[in-house]
Amino acid sequence: MTKVYNFSAGPAILPHDVLVEAQAELLDYAGTGISILESSHRSPEYIAIHDEAVANLSELMGITDDYAVLFVQGGASQQFAQVPMNLLPSGQSADYTNSGSWAKKAIAEAKRLGSVNVIADTNDTRPTCVPDPDSLEITPDAAYVHVTSNETISGAQWKRFPECDAPLVADMSSDILSRAIDVTPFGLIFAGAQKNLGPSGLTVVVVRKDLAEAAPENIPAIFRYQTQIDAGSMYNTPPCFGVYLFMLVTRWLKGLGGVAAVENMNDEKAGRLYAAIDGTDFYRGAAAVEHRSAMNVTFNLPDEALEKRFAAESADVGLKGLKGHRSVGGLRASIYNAFPAEGVDALVAFMADFEKQNG
Amino acid sequence: MTKVYNFSAGPAILPHDVLVEAQAELLDYAGTGISILESSHRSPEYIAIHDEAVANLSELMGITDDYAVLFVQGGASQQFAQVPMNLLPSGQSADYTNSGSWAKKAIAEAKRLGSVNVIADTNDTRPTCVPDPDSLEITPDAAYVHVTSNETISGAQWKRFPECDAPLVADMSSDILSRAIDVTPFGLIFAGAQKNLGPSGLTVVVVRKDLAEAAPENIPAIFRYQTQIDAGSMYNTPPCFGVYLFMLVTRWLKGLGGVAAVENMNDEKAGRLYAAIDGTDFYRGAAAVEHRSAMNVTFNLPDEALEKRFAAESADVGLKGLKGHRSVGGLRASIYNAFPAEGVDALVAFMADFEKQNG
Repeated sequence: MTKVYNFSAGPAILPHDVLVEAQAELLDYAGTGISILESSHRSPEYIAIHDEAVANLSELMGITDDYAVLFVQGGASQQFAQVPMNLLPSGQSADYTNSGSWAKKAIAEAKRLGSVNVIADTNDTRPTCVPDPDSLEITPDAAYVHVTSNETISGAQWKRFPECDAPLVADMSSDILSRAIDVTPFGLIFAGAQKNLGPSGLTVVVVRKDLAEAAPENIPAIFRYQTQIDAGSMYNTPPCFGVYLFMLVTRWLKGLGGVAAVENMNDEKAGRLYAAIDGTDFYRGAAAVEHRSAMNVTFNLPDEALEKRFAAESADVGLKGLKGHRSVGGLRASIYNAFPAEGVDALVAFMADFEKQNG
Repeated sequence: MTKVYNFSAGPAILPHDVLVEAQAELLDYAGTGISILESSHRSPEYIAIHDEAVANLSELMGITDDYAVLFVQGGASQQFAQVPMNLLPSGQSADYTNSGSWAKKAIAEAKRLGSVNVIADTNDTRPTCVPDPDSLEITPDAAYVHVTSNETISGAQWKRFPECDAPLVADMSSDILSRAIDVTPFGLIFAGAQKNLGPSGLTVVVVRKDLAEAAPENIPAIFRYQTQIDAGSMYNTPPCFGVYLFMLVTRWLKGLGGVAAVENMNDEKAGRLYAAIDGTDFYRGAAAVEHRSAMNVTFNLPDEALEKRFAAESADVGLKGLKGHRSVGGLRASIYNAFPAEGVDALVAFMADFEKQNG
């Protein structure tokens, strides 16, 4: 059978060793005679998983006691609403940077809930890019400044974040734990798990405790971060299986050597792919060179018909999920932490072959 | 090794055959070479799962085209907020029945969002019970009437629902698909999956389309049912693995003969357990006889020390999760659809032994 490489943008590839372990213990977790899928979230076994998951993330990201780590639901899309509900009191405004499709969605939702200033907009710029962090005009007394650290669809990534007095709020869904970042400028970081952390259905939130505590009292309890902080993420039943896989993924990442080690591997993988794109006029990177994502490598071919053929023929030889997002077209290779280097080599070899046949 | 029976109230037991199937295909779903945990929600494989899940539920519950079936996140606790956000416009009020801990939580959240009338309250009545559906004084022009069809903690269940002009809204988290119900009086039914449907992290919503459409436009898009109706539950990435297991569970239920068949099995299992409780003065049912839940069988022993010993010694012989909810104490045997009849027999035998030793 052909070896399959999963380039899906999300839900995305999980570490093979994690899946093997999850499969092995799916009917009987830790000798309990019960699957982790049917274990009470109050059981000692689940509590140990939950605690290790929090500890692993804190260690990997260098998260201090000033922050709470929450496991919640609804994905980044729900955070687009929960962030302003909690952190944007009436009478204040928040600054948003519009770097692409996901930032745009965050902005639209925030505008339903409060006063929003879009302080930079690169959504329609081509090649795709993110705003320049040094040229932003931050609103005095902004409640926070929102960034989308990596635009999964356009393949553009912030390489440095804005420096400002207001706390940063970041959607890191598609590059969390892929590179070292300093958490301290951030008031809140959120990420849907289904790219670098685990399966869909789990959302990780890292929030500065003082900001969570200052949220309005009159919003629904389920949407207040403080409610989940008080309840240790168990105000409602958590997505236990997602937390379990997240724990295994973070344990795997620690075994690799942590974020610094995986960042090197990611840069190496992305570098090889961008070199293949740059090595010929047949392929053209979609993102500006200095903003190229190490997670989502977006590129074009001379015309749409060739792009369609490329997507179909690559899938036929086991390179799956390379078709670009339906809103922008082109090709996209999502190469998250769990994506193996030999899959990148396979794609590079296919690209050379395809150009020979069609160039 | 001792055979283990999982009496957990939720996350709760899943059908063994479903777990075996999920385990077998966990590394390679349907010959794709990719786990369903890492498959795109836009893949043909996932779309087929999603469509079968909707079709199975519709068939099992007799849901017509007037309703939409949605797969969302956040559990019943999030629905406590989303229901009034969508169905309770300002200027109108909603009627709530307070039948226990879960109804109380729903009421508290709704009061933060709109005008609420609590038209019946049995929360503090002992033995535990639900309100009499025939004595309710429904508010004229109530936007809806909210019921909690089965109180997981107290073990009391509505055997008939109120008849009224206003649409019923029901939290059916702990008894959905356990018995035949007529969907037509309901405007909205919601259920966290982790009792009768699948793993935690998936919420099933069945909503009348005309009610969803009439919801205010100014609420966050992520919380409008209409948003998810328009997007086929894919406005944000769905909890795919939960939907997959839900599809397998509903397929299994169809194989058993559907809801009517499982209702008979549930009545038989619960009947045997209540007979054991009623057969001696040593055990005492916590719920009023006519409101006894077929899902959560709650009972007491002569004193707390004995209850503690019962919980510990039963766990030692493989009868796990019998300790009552920490807010009420006592014992609770949760015997959802997937709970095997021989587990009930094992508990009945243990009860007789325990009484002999301690009675």
